[in-house]
Amino acid sequence: MSQELFTINNLWMMVATILVFIMHLGFAALEAGLTRAKNTVNILFKNTVIPALGILTYAFIGFNLMYPGDAFEGGFFGLAGLGLDLPDGWDTSEYDEGYTFFTDFIFQAMFAATAATIVSGAVAERIKLGPFLFFSLLYVGVCYPIVGMWKWGGGFLDTLSTPFYDFAGSTIVHSVGGWGAVIGAYLLGPRLGKYKDGKMNAIPGHNLPLATFGVFLLWFGWFGFNGGSVLSASPGEVSLVFVTTAIAASAGAFGALFASYAKFKAYDITMVLNGVLAGLVSITAGADQMAVWESAVIGFVGGILVVFGVVMFDKIKIDDPVGAISVHLVCGIWGTLAVGIFGDLAGTGQFISQLIGILSIGVFCVAFSFIVFFALKKTIGIRVPEAEELEGLDINEHGMHAYPDFATKE
Amino acid sequence: MSQELFTINNLWMMVATILVFIMHLGFAALEAGLTRAKNTVNILFKNTVIPALGILTYAFIGFNLMYPGDAFEGGFFGLAGLGLDLPDGWDTSEYDEGYTFFTDFIFQAMFAATAATIVSGAVAERIKLGPFLFFSLLYVGVCYPIVGMWKWGGGFLDTLSTPFYDFAGSTIVHSVGGWGAVIGAYLLGPRLGKYKDGKMNAIPGHNLPLATFGVFLLWFGWFGFNGGSVLSASPGEVSLVFVTTAIAASAGAFGALFASYAKFKAYDITMVLNGVLAGLVSITAGADQMAVWESAVIGFVGGILVVFGVVMFDKIKIDDPVGAISVHLVCGIWGTLAVGIFGDLAGTGQFISQLIGILSIGVFCVAFSFIVFFALKKTIGIRVPEAEELEGLDINEHGMHAYPDFATKE
Amino acid sequence: MSQELFTINNLWMMVATILVFIMHLGFAALEAGLTRAKNTVNILFKNTVIPALGILTYAFIGFNLMYPGDAFEGGFFGLAGLGLDLPDGWDTSEYDEGYTFFTDFIFQAMFAATAATIVSGAVAERIKLGPFLFFSLLYVGVCYPIVGMWKWGGGFLDTLSTPFYDFAGSTIVHSVGGWGAVIGAYLLGPRLGKYKDGKMNAIPGHNLPLATFGVFLLWFGWFGFNGGSVLSASPGEVSLVFVTTAIAASAGAFGALFASYAKFKAYDITMVLNGVLAGLVSITAGADQMAVWESAVIGFVGGILVVFGVVMFDKIKIDDPVGAISVHLVCGIWGTLAVGIFGDLAGTGQFISQLIGILSIGVFCVAFSFIVFFALKKTIGIRVPEAEELEGLDINEHGMHAYPDFATKE
Repeated sequence: MSQELFTINNLWMMVATILVFIMHLGFAALEAGLTRAKNTVNILFKNTVIPALGILTYAFIGFNLMYPGDAFEGGFFGLAGLGLDLPDGWDTSEYDEGYTFFTDFIFQAMFAATAATIVSGAVAERIKLGPFLFFSLLYVGVCYPIVGMWKWGGGFLDTLSTPFYDFAGSTIVHSVGGWGAVIGAYLLGPRLGKYKDGKMNAIPGHNLPLATFGVFLLWFGWFGFNGGSVLSASPGEVSLVFVTTAIAASAGAFGALFASYAKFKAYDITMVLNGVLAGLVSITAGADQMAVWESAVIGFVGGILVVFGVVMFDKIKIDDPVGAISVHLVCGIWGTLAVGIFGDLAGTGQFISQLIGILSIGVFCVAFSFIVFFALKKTIGIRVPEAEELEGLDINEHGMHAYPDFATKE
Repeated sequence: MSQELFTINNLWMMVATILVFIMHLGFAALEAGLTRAKNTVNILFKNTVIPALGILTYAFIGFNLMYPGDAFEGGFFGLAGLGLDLPDGWDTSEYDEGYTFFTDFIFQAMFAATAATIVSGAVAERIKLGPFLFFSLLYVGVCYPIVGMWKWGGGFLDTLSTPFYDFAGSTIVHSVGGWGAVIGAYLLGPRLGKYKDGKMNAIPGHNLPLATFGVFLLWFGWFGFNGGSVLSASPGEVSLVFVTTAIAASAGAFGALFASYAKFKAYDITMVLNGVLAGLVSITAGADQMAVWESAVIGFVGGILVVFGVVMFDKIKIDDPVGAISVHLVCGIWGTLAVGIFGDLAGTGQFISQLIGILSIGVFCVAFSFIVFFALKKTIGIRVPEAEELEGLDINEHGMHAYPDFATKE
Repeated sequence: MSQELFTINNLWMMVATILVFIMHLGFAALEAGLTRAKNTVNILFKNTVIPALGILTYAFIGFNLMYPGDAFEGGFFGLAGLGLDLPDGWDTSEYDEGYTFFTDFIFQAMFAATAATIVSGAVAERIKLGPFLFFSLLYVGVCYPIVGMWKWGGGFLDTLSTPFYDFAGSTIVHSVGGWGAVIGAYLLGPRLGKYKDGKMNAIPGHNLPLATFGVFLLWFGWFGFNGGSVLSASPGEVSLVFVTTAIAASAGAFGALFASYAKFKAYDITMVLNGVLAGLVSITAGADQMAVWESAVIGFVGGILVVFGVVMFDKIKIDDPVGAISVHLVCGIWGTLAVGIFGDLAGTGQFISQLIGILSIGVFCVAFSFIVFFALKKTIGIRVPEAEELEGLDINEHGMHAYPDFATKE
């Protein structure tokens, strides 16, 4: 590997790192925009603290849990040490052909917080701040790196006879967040007034420009999320990934547009926004494997699924204020299965491996989330008091309003 | 070409692609910010759907219309096929010295939707959603690629004895949008209450931070729009383009500041914001041809023109809520002519070629827009009913409000 | 140097340029979000005009003042000429191994306006527009390039026996802004109602999502601010800087979270946001010198300092609406001193050099700011009339409201 190519590869990985970083702002904006003004400070607080928490815990333990290297034992769990130990040749192609040790760490660290950020949306407007941050600490610092290792760290999902395939994390990142989200939302129960007398009452988001900003920033960052997962600047591979990513997002918008118009007879901007995200999550597992038409199909189906996902979770009274479970869990599963159906890897063996990956990671994440959230619920409690929920978390947990100069309707 | 240089060039084109992508968020924010709160969801909806539409139609037909290659016939029109056919050596310098086939496609695809996004601003707050999306489909999928081919696809404007010059699209992108905007705004008529008893009543934008975000994001993305139009990472050329772009934007801000202060005796933020965009549109045609002082002059004049453009279109009662026609059409023409006046290509022959390009593209776009909008007007109608316009498009076309928690003044 | 490496280095510097550019939007959003709705247009106006002013003045005089080259005289002051004169070999490694002349200029130009943008926040909600722009013109065009030259242009701070070290500008950029901020805020006096009957009355910011956007965009851009200050794409150095930057920002968030919780018993989002910035400013002077744990300590201490800084300046009745003085001056000094305490350069000699740099630049900036602001105060005045301050600067200086469709509380 020439110094030139090494430098280029490393440069692209650093740019991709910055792009993944800005996705955290995307999540903050999306979640704040789709919830009520009285809980906005709380959302912003969580989404500012979580990336900081993710970067620090990933430096202390997460990176070593996810990429244990020689400390690897048995395929399920291993810990290389604590903190970041610079290996010899850390800044040369001796370490890796694509990037330095620090680039490796920081790119992965930016991903780490995503799992908790996804949960944040589903449990919004009613969860206590302290318990949520405690859950995030464990989920980002321990749960995510362990299941991430199963594939990306060379664990048992990577050594199946037909290895499980998850290019940039439909399962490893998005469904991990989605499982935590569904458990959290279930144990918390719905927001006051959401389901009354057997009827679902929509609680509209308070700032749709903010939500739109969020989705565009997520799409923007996803070029780094998927494009960086090539782990080099290889022109053919990265440009293919850019195209499949953009096509799937676009097709997802139309899938959700058509499905929501068919269902609700209205042009619902929140569905189209979630459709874009659905397309992105759906293509993530196989972004480097699909032809253009396949990306369009995968994204379009994702866009349809997100609409019916939202409707279905409302039917079973799992209240997810931003649709995170439908976007990240439902489409995360769909995108992972799609690798067994479309593209170069398609086949029964692959489809079964995809199922194994989805299920094993799902079982672990459900168990982990349930234990942590349930223990918190039974001890310090996870839900704010009713009066606080009605008045808003901002004034009660933070002592401030997000928009103090404006008159509100309530 | 070494593999290293090919990889660098491709990397820059991909980064430029992402930058152009985020301009769509810039347009969404600018247009939403400069219109009223009751029409915000509608603007956001259009500006989310249009880039998705642009990417998909460009994959299906636009790219093949704009770069017909061997299918090219007669200089005016050609179609290479439908969908994206991977050529041999698509991911090597055999295809192009700067990038892969997929990079070529996706960079151009991000430009494609811009034409319709510009129109969106001028027709805002009164156009029906369905007809607008239908117009966008045809304008982005057919009109833009055809006129784009005339120059960038090697068509007749490229084979003039002194070839028409339009580096990154003052005419090919911005004036195309501008012509559609002026026809749409004319056929729709002004918003209710804008011109009453021979007087112009300003209808202020509802969220100026949002508008400011839009302009900064557009400026940010423009470094990719112009810088990527070098079609390689060539250090001298790209850095020159960065400088001319930044200088023209800055000078545009001051041109508009001085002109609007002279005219209105107030420091009007919307004029300064449009001045930045005016400078950017003005330099786009010759961003690789100008010296620093020439960029300053071109941008400064653009900033002045945009102020007088806004005043003039109000005089003839063409109601353009965001000033899109002045920014993209007036300054698009000015910037294209400036290539015949300043820089290395200056000269009578070039000036005439610039006029030919402006006029031929103008005639085609005016005719195309007029036919489509007029046909829609005479059949399904293009304007929402009066009651709907007064109440707002959001609640009538989308069944939702952009800011449901806040009390409004009306 | 191969053409390939030159092209890569130049590419990274251009990407870093764009990242620094978007920090101006970050400042605009942060300052607008942390002040009142009635002064929002004024903040946006200043923060749009200042970068434009910065780029133009830097082209005309600033760049030649800061990098005088052969015109350099005596170590304190030199002027290479006016305007941008292309040197021979400007676009090759003959000019520089990292980038072209134009890249050099535009990267530095993006930094230039920062000094005035920092001041803008501290003097917000009561300064007259004209005098502020005049101050900015001199501060960005003259003061900043002169002190910048002392180190980065090879001046006397660079030729001390143990040279002063300021990697990306904790002192040279941030404290320069901070000194102007403290002088401006002092000469203006506090906002009406801020300190009454010996009590401090918090004046809450009107839009916390906007403030959050600002901080994330600043963090995002800081990867270019610090990462670009490597002045090449050198994989080891840039990736180290990315890691120290991200770790310090994260630790800063927690430092401020803990300190503000200890002090106020509330989870104050504005403190956490300023904590992120505190961490970033603190690591800027030594971002290429620190180990991971050292970055964490430096950032964490910065986060604590910013909380106590805000409290202290309120005690001495220096009213800084956005906390700019604590972030940029206090943490700028802390970060610069930290280079003498932590990392490879640590030592008494270095610590003394750091003090010399901080003090000499501080004295010059204080004198410069005082003379300019005092002269303006004694002639045309720097503070808006009381009635205008109460009603808001937007309607009085700009004739418009930032959010005309919404009902306000006052």
